[in-house]
Amino acid sequence: MLLTRFFLPVLKENPKEAEIISHIYMLRAGMIQQSASGIYSWLPLGKIILEKVTDICRQEMIKAGANEILMPTLQPAEIWKESGRYEDYGKEMLRINDRNNRDLLYGPTNEELVTEIFRTHVKSYKELPLNLFHIQWKFRDEVRPRFGVMRGREFLMKDAYSFDMNYNSSIKSYNIMFIAYMQLFKKMGLKAIPMRAETGPIGGDLSHEFIIIAETGESEVFVERELLNYESSVTKINYNEDLQEEVNRFTSFYAATKEKHEESNFHNEDNILIKTRGIEVGHIFHFGQKYSLPMRATISDKEGNKIPVFMGSYGVGLSRLVGAIIEANHDHKGIIWPKEITPWDYNIINLKSGDNDCDNICLNLYNLMKANGLEVLYDDTDERTGAKLARADLIGLPYQIIIGPKGIKDQLYDLKSRKSGDISRLSYNELINFVQTNK
Amino acid sequence: MLLTRFFLPVLKENPKEAEIISHIYMLRAGMIQQSASGIYSWLPLGKIILEKVTDICRQEMIKAGANEILMPTLQPAEIWKESGRYEDYGKEMLRINDRNNRDLLYGPTNEELVTEIFRTHVKSYKELPLNLFHIQWKFRDEVRPRFGVMRGREFLMKDAYSFDMNYNSSIKSYNIMFIAYMQLFKKMGLKAIPMRAETGPIGGDLSHEFIIIAETGESEVFVERELLNYESSVTKINYNEDLQEEVNRFTSFYAATKEKHEESNFHNEDNILIKTRGIEVGHIFHFGQKYSLPMRATISDKEGNKIPVFMGSYGVGLSRLVGAIIEANHDHKGIIWPKEITPWDYNIINLKSGDNDCDNICLNLYNLMKANGLEVLYDDTDERTGAKLARADLIGLPYQIIIGPKGIKDQLYDLKSRKSGDISRLSYNELINFVQTNK
Repeated sequence: MLLTRFFLPVLKENPKEAEIISHIYMLRAGMIQQSASGIYSWLPLGKIILEKVTDICRQEMIKAGANEILMPTLQPAEIWKESGRYEDYGKEMLRINDRNNRDLLYGPTNEELVTEIFRTHVKSYKELPLNLFHIQWKFRDEVRPRFGVMRGREFLMKDAYSFDMNYNSSIKSYNIMFIAYMQLFKKMGLKAIPMRAETGPIGGDLSHEFIIIAETGESEVFVERELLNYESSVTKINYNEDLQEEVNRFTSFYAATKEKHEESNFHNEDNILIKTRGIEVGHIFHFGQKYSLPMRATISDKEGNKIPVFMGSYGVGLSRLVGAIIEANHDHKGIIWPKEITPWDYNIINLKSGDNDCDNICLNLYNLMKANGLEVLYDDTDERTGAKLARADLIGLPYQIIIGPKGIKDQLYDLKSRKSGDISRLSYNELINFVQTNK
Repeated sequence: MLLTRFFLPVLKENPKEAEIISHIYMLRAGMIQQSASGIYSWLPLGKIILEKVTDICRQEMIKAGANEILMPTLQPAEIWKESGRYEDYGKEMLRINDRNNRDLLYGPTNEELVTEIFRTHVKSYKELPLNLFHIQWKFRDEVRPRFGVMRGREFLMKDAYSFDMNYNSSIKSYNIMFIAYMQLFKKMGLKAIPMRAETGPIGGDLSHEFIIIAETGESEVFVERELLNYESSVTKINYNEDLQEEVNRFTSFYAATKEKHEESNFHNEDNILIKTRGIEVGHIFHFGQKYSLPMRATISDKEGNKIPVFMGSYGVGLSRLVGAIIEANHDHKGIIWPKEITPWDYNIINLKSGDNDCDNICLNLYNLMKANGLEVLYDDTDERTGAKLARADLIGLPYQIIIGPKGIKDQLYDLKSRKSGDISRLSYNELINFVQTNK
């Protein structure tokens, strides 16, 4: 991508309204713009990152056997009255009246609507288990929206819903999602910690939150030190096998959100338990027949008995994840994208656009790298060196290739790692060699 | 994809609420489900098609130099009051009050919000021309939603917005979008006819609708017979060149919607003009400074003068297109997907699932085809032959490979073209040969 063709409106100053680092950097790097309190537009750089996060999540859901659907943003009030949640949900639910005075609402979550889809079409045990997921904008009318996309009102969520014939099968479906979540966060370069959690307005008997440890996190959490660095020895997940053992490996550690933490139940010998803060990026629920009973979503078993289906629901906050990834990957100069998420791997910076030698070598390199299938952003603007270098650090691509008149004279070019800050001076051939071996 | 793992709830009967063929088939083929009047959920088959249509549109926008952003579904009322459209828009606009009693609305279109983004960041002629597009759900509170996704209330639209320094440059941007639209509809296997059109509530001096001719279309149109089959001789579009001549090739024909048609201006000699019906799938507008003047979106020219920016907007109805494609591609048995849009190219149908020979040959073929990069749906369900064949015709993949005990005995298998209905009886090697040469 040529930077002169890419809309990247960076800000030089820290915006006053932003309190936490991800919000500051997302505004400064031209990723988002507020359109109303807690409601944001995603500018091109933000859109690319949101798409990357979304796609990793989608691919893992498909691997785990879920079917993608797309439910609308607006829902009829009737089904929420059926489940009993229409009044319960309170002021966070955005209620809407259409021109014919019918009650609609902007979906904060989709248990009711997906149950309505299920009961319309699925009647027999033969069609189970089934998992339906979608990726759609939700709205929760927060009292105090803040921290940019971390606590917005209109936000993008992946939500999946499992349907099973009985409790045991339903727990298997829950386990599949549990492990899929561990996988998808890992694929985003994130270390997510699963924790026992409250079920809140979704309901149910079993629930885990997935938490990214960060000082700026809103949730207070209690977690065994060892879990923070724990990696399962299972490297290749087979979603067709029973995953209970793999789930147990994680849940055998003590880890709980503040609401679930019980001091008395845990003897903190040798100080193995730590109290810290984190960002909730996923939340899964097993609630059995909570919705299928009032909404009469029943299925026939082998004997012809009609049984309310067993369900679970599984959410990932995709727009929030963009903020969480920045909270976990930055320094005082800007964002440091993990390789799994970065919009481009390389940032070619032409320090003297308009100079024939600089233009030629940059453009040759850019074309060669693209021809080799590499992802490159080429800063071909005519701004000053200082502004270009500061912007490159702010937008945080893993490698910068810096080319100016001095380098051309010496035939040595700077390759800078954004993360370590280390700069290597390489000849053109060494540079080509490096980028070809670092695909 | 194994059909036993794909959620495809087909209906055997024609649903009573559907009046036109695309609506009937989308319901029967398990593509959509109504959740409220004019508001639909997209089930897996529908979601795949919607994604294909969206992706073709997105790719052409990117080729044409546009930058993808993503604006929210909800907008603040303030900017609509600035442009003067808040009252004008009438009851089609869904107005919402949040918990703090602030006025929001569900965006029916995005001229105001994109102008707000533009004026915040762009100040100089050096940053122009610029084209920002997004793909997002819109809401228009139609009096009488009908025809399924063809006239829904919540609908998916791609809308692009161009920004230029002066009138001439702005017309160039309009022409780029005009040609991009011709390209993207062609890439969907559609013949779209550009027609002079009314500008309506968007405004401006120049506008074209892109119409798919269909008897069930809502718009009455007048078009020169020759244009219906006209193909430009230009096969490779270069968006960096002046496209006026290419635009003129299309606009030199007479073609107008009913509102723009003037009988007296056209001498219908030799009966070259026909009156027919069509479906509007795209609409482009050039409106100059209509929004930039009241919203003070100004840019500095070379001399430092501040000039309200020249704009155009360009919409494609993506969810409606799924219906339009079916209106243009079907027979009495069901949908016939054009190859550009089909979710899979091949439908392997096992007439006797559970029979070892049938299962083996189907699964071998399925695996071989997938290994060769082919897109295959394998009907491995245990339903009856009649139901399987009817469903295959209904969901309309281009080729069916039908394998049953009789074929296995004769070592000859049926390859059926969905469009022509022709069936060839091929040996296994001939079948492999066919699919490998028809990638």
